[in-house]
Formats: sequence, structure tokens, C-alpha cells
Amino acid sequence: MSATATLNRFTDFMVGPARFMNLLSCFELGLIDALRQRGGQTAAELGTAVGATSNAVEQLLLLPVKEGFVAQDEATGRYSLDALAEVPEADVQRVLTLMNMIKVTMVRQVFYLTESVLTGTLVGLEKLYGFQGGTLYDAVAEHKDLRESWATLMDNVTAHIDPWFFDNITVPAGARVLDVAGNTGLGAILTHRLKGSPGLHVTTFDLPEKEKEALENFRAHDLEGRCGFVGGDVFEGVPAGHDIVLIKHFLDMWDKDEVRRILRSVHRSLDHGGQVNILVPVYPENTRESAAVDVDFFPAFFLGCTMGQGGPQKMSAYRELLEECGFTVTNTVTQDPARLLPGTFVVHGILSATKTS
Amino acid sequence: MSATATLNRFTDFMVGPARFMNLLSCFELGLIDALRQRGGQTAAELGTAVGATSNAVEQLLLLPVKEGFVAQDEATGRYSLDALAEVPEADVQRVLTLMNMIKVTMVRQVFYLTESVLTGTLVGLEKLYGFQGGTLYDAVAEHKDLRESWATLMDNVTAHIDPWFFDNITVPAGARVLDVAGNTGLGAILTHRLKGSPGLHVTTFDLPEKEKEALENFRAHDLEGRCGFVGGDVFEGVPAGHDIVLIKHFLDMWDKDEVRRILRSVHRSLDHGGQVNILVPVYPENTRESAAVDVDFFPAFFLGCTMGQGGPQKMSAYRELLEECGFTVTNTVTQDPARLLPGTFVVHGILSATKTS
Repeated sequence: MSATATLNRFTDFMVGPARFMNLLSCFELGLIDALRQRGGQTAAELGTAVGATSNAVEQLLLLPVKEGFVAQDEATGRYSLDALAEVPEADVQRVLTLMNMIKVTMVRQVFYLTESVLTGTLVGLEKLYGFQGGTLYDAVAEHKDLRESWATLMDNVTAHIDPWFFDNITVPAGARVLDVAGNTGLGAILTHRLKGSPGLHVTTFDLPEKEKEALENFRAHDLEGRCGFVGGDVFEGVPAGHDIVLIKHFLDMWDKDEVRRILRSVHRSLDHGGQVNILVPVYPENTRESAAVDVDFFPAFFLGCTMGQGGPQKMSAYRELLEECGFTVTNTVTQDPARLLPGTFVVHGILSATKTS
Repeated sequence: MSATATLNRFTDFMVGPARFMNLLSCFELGLIDALRQRGGQTAAELGTAVGATSNAVEQLLLLPVKEGFVAQDEATGRYSLDALAEVPEADVQRVLTLMNMIKVTMVRQVFYLTESVLTGTLVGLEKLYGFQGGTLYDAVAEHKDLRESWATLMDNVTAHIDPWFFDNITVPAGARVLDVAGNTGLGAILTHRLKGSPGLHVTTFDLPEKEKEALENFRAHDLEGRCGFVGGDVFEGVPAGHDIVLIKHFLDMWDKDEVRRILRSVHRSLDHGGQVNILVPVYPENTRESAAVDVDFFPAFFLGCTMGQGGPQKMSAYRELLEECGFTVTNTVTQDPARLLPGTFVVHGILSATKTS
């Protein structure tokens, strides 16, 4: 790549923040909805409909017109939906949930990425919310805007990904299952729903403050005898007495050294032959030849916005970490990027492994 | 474009903020400099050099590796510069000035784009700086971080663009020139330097608070008798008695209605045959078929970060506005996008026009 080509490629990065908010703002203002209701509107008509000047409408619609999302009639200047007319409303809503999560948890925070990396703390959360010494997952408890944007997105992700996970793992009848970092019990409930068998028992393991809500959830789902909760910290030890351990949506939050500590804790808790099943975003094996945008997203997300550390690894790296910690990997599954839900870009992987040493 | 293709295109927008800060952070942390000094370093070595964990270094370098800016040896995992090795240091610095301006004046502020459009005010400046009722150009007077990032960039732009402007306009010997919104006199000084002729006199017209610094600048450049300053507000009237009016880096800040008011003020101030020369960013004529990224950038920049209104127009729109206001356009020049400085994306245009009605 020539020096000129390299620097010109930089311009595509430079417009990234503006481009993101311009597109999202067209939805937030209601311009896209107004055009869905009635095509062929002028900038002035749209401006009146959404409470903006016609000048602002003209400026903000340049980008969707350039992209072919919206059409503009050359002679009259009137706007209509173009490609966006073909997108089902439900898909738009799903994608807007993701865009809103990015807006609320990242757009401002990422300004402080360098300071966050240097300190290993979330400087953005401190500067913007006065929140110190914790992660985004702690901050959502205190800040409604963070919680709503984050929880709505994660509910979408879990609803879509967890069934795929359970389709691809084996849970024998009567197994004693431990869901590590199982939050308030959703994973345990899903295990019963998707892998239910006589005698199956699932224990949610997470910080003690999650217990009350988890037990309420078990009661609400009529699973009181078949689910349990153990409070504790995975870095201090994982409760023993289980055949199968699940680790979903968790390892990507940690630096490799912490991932090793987690896997060793799990290893100690299992008997020989015990199994672990991991669900985690995975980077493409060949960074250079990938068209995927997950490597564009996750480093800034984890280092600057959610943890101050962490980030996904390649499937091969997770495999090595498991082997290093005394497991033999028995199965791996990677999502086919071509079959992700439209408008999503996170490729998940599943690793199943057995304690063999 | 199918619904799936449309939504997948959205993912490229979604990663925009993360991608921008990830790349910039690699420079801010000193990772690129460290690799320029010595190739073949591991993540751990780089981490020690810049004060970050090796995990963070690995995460942040994924993107530059994917883009081919940085190379990673497959066997050893060691990093070296790839395409970035070919880019002259001075070009890197110039591009980082632009990226820093975007970071400081846009990344956080653009979060409030929708509210800014609905109110016509800079909600981001208010929320982040407690700055109310003004523009970025007012806020730079009070906030050093905004001022430094903004002024450094504009000095770069002016040094590069204004000579091109003066190359393309005619200023006859002895002309009386008025530089509208001439700030603290730089345009007047450049007119003398680049168009100097016996009897040439240039008056800077701007808000009265600019007078002191402008007069000091004229003295420092030994131009006391040949430059002057008039304080006033362009929306209340433009001083008469000039042959040629210059309007540089100004019309893009305003909504079309305000552009009309400015052009009508200028028209009233000129005698029949008087000329106006405009320097302004211009959008491509065919939005749909353009690969340019200026429409990705400017709407969010002006509406959300600098003015709460405004934004560039197409050359054809500026031509129409001039004709509407009683001018005949005599010459237009548009920068060739292929000949912009590498790593810049703003295409400027020049319009020269004569008062004919």
C-alpha cells in the first residue's frame, strides 16, 4: 500500500464517529419513520414533521442518499425510502437496539480510550458519570441510561445466541450443571428449557448480590427444586460437585491471565472427566484477510467502555488456553459469518472440553 | 440493495466510533512510534515501552494489522510497521492533527447530535463544557483543549488552501479589498503576500473584539498603511467602498437563509461591477455516485459540534444562491479530489462573481 493510499484509508476512519451518529440521528429524529409513512416529501415538509430546519434535514439526509438507503428525486428534491423500504420494521428495531447500545455505552466514553488503557480503568465512566473503580456491568446498576441500552441489547443477543449454544452442547440426563457467572439465573432457566431431562439440576454461580433475583426467577419459572444459586467469586474458587460447567458471555471480558485463572478454578472444581462448555465471541483466525468488523469494535469496547481490560481471542487461542489449563478440547463450533442475523457482526464460538489431567 | 445487504452495511457505521479511537490510540500510546524505532517487538515489549498491558497491546494492534498498517509475524507474534513504514513522519503528523481535532471537538459532542438538531444549539458543548448560547468558534476562546486542537488544524488548512485560492482569483493592482469574516487579519496579510500590488489595500471585517489582535498582526507584518480593520456584524451590513470582497471559510457555517442574507449584505455594499470571491468546501454534485466522505463528516460536524446549523452545499447550490442575490458568476474552480493532500477529504471550491443587478 502506498503512503498516499494508507493515509487516504485513514480518512475512512476519521469520519467514523460522524457517520455513525448521522445515520442514527436520522432514525432518532423520526426522518426514516416519516418517509416510511409517506414517500415524496421535501426537506421542508420533513423538517416540519420532525421539528428540525429544512437545512438540517438536507444535511443529514445526504449520507443515507449517498448510501442508497434513501432516494432523492433529482428534479424535485423530494425524498423517499430506497433500500430501507425493503427492510422489515422488526429488523430495523433490532439493529437500532444495537446502535443505541453503542451510542450510550461507547460514543462519549471511547474519547478516553488511551487513558483507560494506561490506567486499566474506565476513565470515561469516571469523567462522564462520576463512576469509579468498577466496570460497566457495575455501573449499569446505578445508571438507568446505561442499564436500559445495555440490557435491551443483551436480551436480544441472549435470545438469539443461547439456543444455538444449547443446540451444540451435550447435557446428559440427570447432569449436575454449574453456570459460571450465571447472573440472575437466565442461563439455568434456558438449560432446563432447552436441555431439560429427568434429574437435571442447574446451579447459578455468581456474586452473592445476584442471589435474591435469581431465586425469584427460579420460582417464577417453577424451577425451585431443579435450580440453585451459589454466591462467590470465580477468582477465589468455583464450587465443586458438578458434571458440567457452562461459561457463557464471560471469558471475553478478561485479559488472558485472568482467563487462565478462571479456567484453572473451573478445572479444580471438576472431577476427572468433568466437562466445560464455553460460549464466547471469537476473532477470525487470519486477522489480515478478514473482512469482519469485530476487531474494529471489541478492543475499544472492552478496554475503553466496559472493563478496562479483556477482549475476545481467536478460537485457536481459547483452545490453547484450555489445553494449558488441563482440558482436552472435544468440540469447537464457530458461527458462519454469512449466517449472522443481518446487521450484526459478532461471531460467537463454542468450545467443549473435558478435564483430562 | 437487499434488506440483508442494507443492514450489513449498517455494521460498518456501527464500528465507526470504536475504529476511529482504536487507530488514534495506537498513535497516542506511542505504539506506532515504538515500532518505527524498532521493528520485531512482542506485545509484552511494546506494553512495557508504552505503559500498557500486553493484552491491551494485542487487542489494539488487531485493527492496524487487519488494515495492513502494521505487520505481525505469524510464527513469533512480533509486530513491525507495514504500510505505515512508507509514510513520511511529517504526513503522519499532519493527519494526526486532523484526527486530534476530530477527537476533541467531535467524538463526545456528536452523541448529542439529535438534541442539537432539534434545538439548533450545541447541546454537546453545554453538557460537556457548560458552554451555552454560542458556537465552537466562541467556545475556543474559553477552552484551551478545544482551541488548541481546532486552531492547529485550521492553521494547517489555511496554509495549504489559501495559496490555492489566491492563485485562482484576480486582484487588480490598487484594488480596495474587503475580507469578510477576516478574523484577526490573516487573510488580509495573505492577500498582500500572494497578490501584492502598488496601492493594494485590504480591510479585515469581523466582530469588533478581533480588532486589537488584527492591528497587532498588521504591525508585525509591516502592513499598517496597507491594511485596516472595520468592526461589525455581517448580518447587519457590510462596509461599502470596496472593489473586491473575499469570503473565505465562512459560508459553510450557515443555513441557506443566512447565506442569502450574507450575500445580499455584500451585494448592497458593492458598486455595480464589484466582485466577490468565495472559498468554501463544496459537496460533490452527484451525492449518490460519490465516493467522497465529506458528506459523512460535515453534517454532524456543523449541526452537532460547531454551529448547530450550517453545512456546505454543492457548487451548483452556491452558484444559484449568488445568482439569486444579484451576482453573475464569472468563474468556478473545484479541487480535484485525486489531488488533495493524502489523508484529507475536504474538497474546496472557489466561486468568483460580479454584481450585475
